Amino acid sequence: MSSQSQFIAHLTLEDLAKREFRDDGTGKSTLMLQVAAEARSKGYEGICIPLTNEKWKSRWRDLCLLPSEDVMDNRQEMEKKGEEWRANPGFDLDEVTITRLEEAEKVVGITSDLLDLDSSDDWVRNDSEIALLQELAYASYLGVRTVILPAPRNRAFVASYARAVNAALKANPYIILSVRIPIYDPQMIQLSSGTPGTLTGASLKFVDDQPSIATWEMWDAIRTICDYDPRLTLTLDMTPPLPAELEVLYQWVAEPTRYLFLPASAFISNAKGYPVLTKGTQSFIRDIMKIQPHVILSGTFSGRHTKGGEAAYSQYVRHLEKTSPYIKAANTTGTVENFAHGYQDYLQKPLQPLMDNLQSMTYHTFEQDPVKYRNYEEAVFRALSEWPKPGKIIICVAGAGRGPLVVRCLTAAVRTGKEVLVYALEKNPSAFVTLQSKLRREWGDKVKLLFGDMRTAPVPEPVDILVSELLGSFGDNELSPECLDGAMRFLKDDGISIPASYTAYLAPLSSSKLYNETRVTKDEKEVETPYVVMFQAVNILSGDGGGIRGVCGPRVQECWEFEHPRRDAVLNEQGLPPTNSHNARSAKLTFHIPHAGVLHGLAGYFEAVLYGNIGLSIHPDRMQKISKDMLSWFPIYFPFKEPLYLPSNSELQVSMWRLTSDRQVWYEWCAEAFLPLPGTSVLPEKPKALANTEDDTSQLLAPLTTPTIIHSPLADADDSTSAFTSEKISLGCPPDESGSEGAGSRIGLVKIGQTSLHNPGGRSSWIGL
Amino acid sequence: MSSQSQFIAHLTLEDLAKREFRDDGTGKSTLMLQVAAEARSKGYEGICIPLTNEKWKSRWRDLCLLPSEDVMDNRQEMEKKGEEWRANPGFDLDEVTITRLEEAEKVVGITSDLLDLDSSDDWVRNDSEIALLQELAYASYLGVRTVILPAPRNRAFVASYARAVNAALKANPYIILSVRIPIYDPQMIQLSSGTPGTLTGASLKFVDDQPSIATWEMWDAIRTICDYDPRLTLTLDMTPPLPAELEVLYQWVAEPTRYLFLPASAFISNAKGYPVLTKGTQSFIRDIMKIQPHVILSGTFSGRHTKGGEAAYSQYVRHLEKTSPYIKAANTTGTVENFAHGYQDYLQKPLQPLMDNLQSMTYHTFEQDPVKYRNYEEAVFRALSEWPKPGKIIICVAGAGRGPLVVRCLTAAVRTGKEVLVYALEKNPSAFVTLQSKLRREWGDKVKLLFGDMRTAPVPEPVDILVSELLGSFGDNELSPECLDGAMRFLKDDGISIPASYTAYLAPLSSSKLYNETRVTKDEKEVETPYVVMFQAVNILSGDGGGIRGVCGPRVQECWEFEHPRRDAVLNEQGLPPTNSHNARSAKLTFHIPHAGVLHGLAGYFEAVLYGNIGLSIHPDRMQKISKDMLSWFPIYFPFKEPLYLPSNSELQVSMWRLTSDRQVWYEWCAEAFLPLPGTSVLPEKPKALANTEDDTSQLLAPLTTPTIIHSPLADADDSTSAFTSEKISLGCPPDESGSEGAGSRIGLVKIGQTSLHNPGGRSSWIGL
Repeated sequence: MSSQSQFIAHLTLEDLAKREFRDDGTGKSTLMLQVAAEARSKGYEGICIPLTNEKWKSRWRDLCLLPSEDVMDNRQEMEKKGEEWRANPGFDLDEVTITRLEEAEKVVGITSDLLDLDSSDDWVRNDSEIALLQELAYASYLGVRTVILPAPRNRAFVASYARAVNAALKANPYIILSVRIPIYDPQMIQLSSGTPGTLTGASLKFVDDQPSIATWEMWDAIRTICDYDPRLTLTLDMTPPLPAELEVLYQWVAEPTRYLFLPASAFISNAKGYPVLTKGTQSFIRDIMKIQPHVILSGTFSGRHTKGGEAAYSQYVRHLEKTSPYIKAANTTGTVENFAHGYQDYLQKPLQPLMDNLQSMTYHTFEQDPVKYRNYEEAVFRALSEWPKPGKIIICVAGAGRGPLVVRCLTAAVRTGKEVLVYALEKNPSAFVTLQSKLRREWGDKVKLLFGDMRTAPVPEPVDILVSELLGSFGDNELSPECLDGAMRFLKDDGISIPASYTAYLAPLSSSKLYNETRVTKDEKEVETPYVVMFQAVNILSGDGGGIRGVCGPRVQECWEFEHPRRDAVLNEQGLPPTNSHNARSAKLTFHIPHAGVLHGLAGYFEAVLYGNIGLSIHPDRMQKISKDMLSWFPIYFPFKEPLYLPSNSELQVSMWRLTSDRQVWYEWCAEAFLPLPGTSVLPEKPKALANTEDDTSQLLAPLTTPTIIHSPLADADDSTSAFTSEKISLGCPPDESGSEGAGSRIGLVKIGQTSLHNPGGRSSWIGL
Repeated sequence: MSSQSQFIAHLTLEDLAKREFRDDGTGKSTLMLQVAAEARSKGYEGICIPLTNEKWKSRWRDLCLLPSEDVMDNRQEMEKKGEEWRANPGFDLDEVTITRLEEAEKVVGITSDLLDLDSSDDWVRNDSEIALLQELAYASYLGVRTVILPAPRNRAFVASYARAVNAALKANPYIILSVRIPIYDPQMIQLSSGTPGTLTGASLKFVDDQPSIATWEMWDAIRTICDYDPRLTLTLDMTPPLPAELEVLYQWVAEPTRYLFLPASAFISNAKGYPVLTKGTQSFIRDIMKIQPHVILSGTFSGRHTKGGEAAYSQYVRHLEKTSPYIKAANTTGTVENFAHGYQDYLQKPLQPLMDNLQSMTYHTFEQDPVKYRNYEEAVFRALSEWPKPGKIIICVAGAGRGPLVVRCLTAAVRTGKEVLVYALEKNPSAFVTLQSKLRREWGDKVKLLFGDMRTAPVPEPVDILVSELLGSFGDNELSPECLDGAMRFLKDDGISIPASYTAYLAPLSSSKLYNETRVTKDEKEVETPYVVMFQAVNILSGDGGGIRGVCGPRVQECWEFEHPRRDAVLNEQGLPPTNSHNARSAKLTFHIPHAGVLHGLAGYFEAVLYGNIGLSIHPDRMQKISKDMLSWFPIYFPFKEPLYLPSNSELQVSMWRLTSDRQVWYEWCAEAFLPLPGTSVLPEKPKALANTEDDTSQLLAPLTTPTIIHSPLADADDSTSAFTSEKISLGCPPDESGSEGAGSRIGLVKIGQTSLHNPGGRSSWIGL
């Protein structure tokens, strides 16, 4: 169940000037208290007002900015006054809008619009910063919780703006600052049709992503300079109407968008005269409602729209919120969104059930999942139905836990009418007590219990069907491959494994929130741990379509796969693999980044084939089809220690490894960013003549020992669906990989950045074997 | 005095096979010991040999790589053997070249050239890594200090190569690894004239920087993934002949280039038949000799050149070393290079003489400088000579220390024959004792001593000439502006200050060594401290020429300036400025980065005008002209916490602030990187009609309160040479700064990266007032 967004009433100095104080005779009321009470009575949570008034503006202008250069009579005098102010900045009583603690309650303050923190003039910036600190000191004094800063306006001096904001954050340790940023810059828009000035949304189309990226890029520069201070938030100014194409705007969901600033002027009238928003803006608001920004409404009492009155604006926005797909899902029992309430963007350490024995409550939680067990039962049902041989079918549930899969196997057997014997094998001695209880009370002689680790425990007879559920959010991260290697000892040669295979997927992710969550610890190990997390304030940065060079994979890419049973395996006398080398994996993936963003981590998913076309999936594009409303797995998150800036149309090359020693399994990951340069070519043509002359030069650089004609037998041993074949590995890489990416291609690549290697040597989050 | 580079003899397996063991009857000698002894007798420091031989290669090939796919008879058997090896990797006696501790002494090992750590085949990479770890474990066992790794060959899998190297570094905590990297990739070269295959250097010209950048970029990716491990070094392979244009190769000086690999085949014959190097290679070796790499000579005994024999190669390289400008300077008394011996790339905390009283030894060191005091004397001499008024001239030396400037003032007065009185003002009570001693023994009544801080101490009369030396490596970083503000009280209105002004300069710097030095501490404050350092293994990344967009400043750019006396100053009753706002400064500089590199920090310099055209300068391009052989100041270094990758032809925008509160002065700095996209334009034309329509949209984004027609009086008060004028501040910025850089220009900018803000709030290295 999700709570509702709150509304805040915005009042300008002009708005306030029109209000009249009504003396109630108590001597305690003030104009501001009356204004606030009126707003609350209309359903607003609070009011948003400037902290200072025209009197202050006028004095400040005199202090710092001479009216013109030829009026120099009192110049020295005014400069002296300016210096006096700089030495002791402070307000007079009649220069501020609020003066009492009660007046400051639930007020969102706005700093003076005179402040010009990104002026190209040094002195204007200097004095603006002093005035900003003066306003914030006063707001802090009165206990104002949040202050909205003026929008940055000058890209060339955004670093100066940001530095001043950072100084303000440090000087006021309890206040929350919110930078007002227009959702895009209409000055940069190209109208695809229609005439300039008719910005009604319908006629509007972004020709490229610059109009939006320009303002986001300012925000990104500011929060990066402020080192992602958690007290620095964003007031997204929705004044410009939005075009229908919204993909480029998703990034705002991954930012700390605390307020939406929505003036009455952003509304259009519907046929009946009521205020409504353009289709693009509707759609955007429905989307961003999942991170529940407060909505600041402005000018709603000005009668701009003929019908509905002041309340019509908030009623309409509330309607959008209620029809948001995310909010609807969150309010519907049985959905992941509903189940995960309170866990959004919350980082959890992945379970390590091989190393740690699970608690009964953990089993209980996962047994709630209606979809996972239904699909398992269906998979066993089909496997039994299609089983070609007569007679009793021997099933082993490896890792039986408290027995839910045993129950499903028995039900499936009843449905097929075939005779089965189920071995329930479990290593957790506590859960084994529960299994004994169920055996005695429910299962009888259809089930035999076996205690022990599936890699070593004796099993009385070879089995036909091996059923296991050892999957993690990334597929293999709970060591399913290693455990099932050990269980293959007692699977018949023509036996089948449920699951038959599972595949890990990756996508590049942006999320200010998750970045800040992972680095609250200064412990490097913790920063490099993968986490299980229900994503919410995130944006997948990649897009489909191949990118400018046409070599990139899809938005979410296959990382690697595991199959069971493994074919052509080399085994020792105990039927176990002599080393774990065959469970090492690596992937190099190339993602197309259509719109600029900051990479904070990788989102990991899995998809498993249980049997035939029955599966389990948390792949964002396929989960609805394969296992809708399955609750057992949130995605996994591989964080990066340092954010990596990715421009529009860049290529991101991600390397991910699954590594193994004789004791551990762990992941390492890193990424490189490139920008394709259209129209360039690294090499006009390849100087093959040079490469073929076997002089000392070419010999040195391409030693004759390169095993170019020798193939790996074990790679060949893996069949074509394995991630080990070179075609899969080279997915997304340029066709010609002879030392320079892009050689032979029409479009060259320029490297623009790189992350470090994460979790080297498995120093954190290794998994004991 | 610098020591000489060492030579190492490289021997291939073929070379070793030709040597014969000579039994000396002791029973203790071995072939390898004889080979090593012979090399030493020829002047080599040691030998460089493969660790394993053809027998190992043959076995390893069998273990891992089947000869071809149709020979499958013993496939299962061979796969089993492979798994046995992977479980317990080890050598047989006759598979290695050295077996005894004595044999390993002064040996630089080379790993097998079979290793293919960046193969596109997963299994080849997997087995190469196991074999690499096996070789390094064996080398560690024998105490081999350094092992050279095979060159990376496959850009697409360089991350895998690097990850394996990183694992090897972690597994062998005492060994030094050196990655062999060709100085450029001849396959990527475009010959400007001549036919392919005739790579003699003279006919060779890099059309762009790709051939060199391609191999450097591989190195950069590797060391970044290895997190700049100090045990990871570079063996620069000099086999390809170098073109005459070398600028792009300077970056290797800023890397841990431990070895130069120089085969006999890289030499050409001179007219007499002796081996010599091409002009380009000569020039490069002379340059890189300043970081003293060891030189590995290969094939020198093969008689490739008709004259000079084996010794001719090392003699020739020694000749290049001796004629290296840096080595020559280091061996010449009186040069900075000679004076700074032992201090190269050594980080020192800047002095804070206002906060800390200096020790006599510190004064003594700085008084050694022959140039600084000569120039001061000359400045005072000229000032006195040109002094327009008759009568005694009153001089004050503010910050007299132990008196060297007092002496120079007296000498200058004698030279002019004018009558002077010198007040020697000093706040250090210990130095004041020395001053008293000099007064009594040498100066007599020409000098009067005054004890106290120049900002507050009473001075008996106004002075004509104020002489001070309060300069730091960045000009103002020892608080000269603040101190001289305080001394202006007692300077006559028409008095002069020596120095008259000083200017700070900045340039972007790359240096693996300095990056590693600054981060040895995990303390964030220490990482953000500016340091004084004599640069050596560094590369200035910027270039002259304006860059692709034509808007960039020169290679080393002016940051800001201070002038004394200050004009039109606002002062209080004590003659002091009411605030220190006027000493705040900021600069935004745009640098052209011609060749890809990694930004690790900013190099800071200063240049001071003492009087007229007499100055002091450590500006790298002007110091020779203005104050050659001045020893008192090394440059200053502003480090970045995180390296920033800069591609070729990028633009680097650096922001630097000098900030001040009522108690402190400090610097903050950050940088943004952009790539100009040739042929693109953000806006085809500016939609001015839209911006001028004063609807709600444009009003919101460009508030009417923007003080566009209002000028700052204090900015105007500063004269045109001050860094405060907007023309200077906007140096290098696009002409149109209305919110989107490059708007209106033919060439758009794409942001590609950013650093965080360094030293925010002056949390480290602040300077107390």
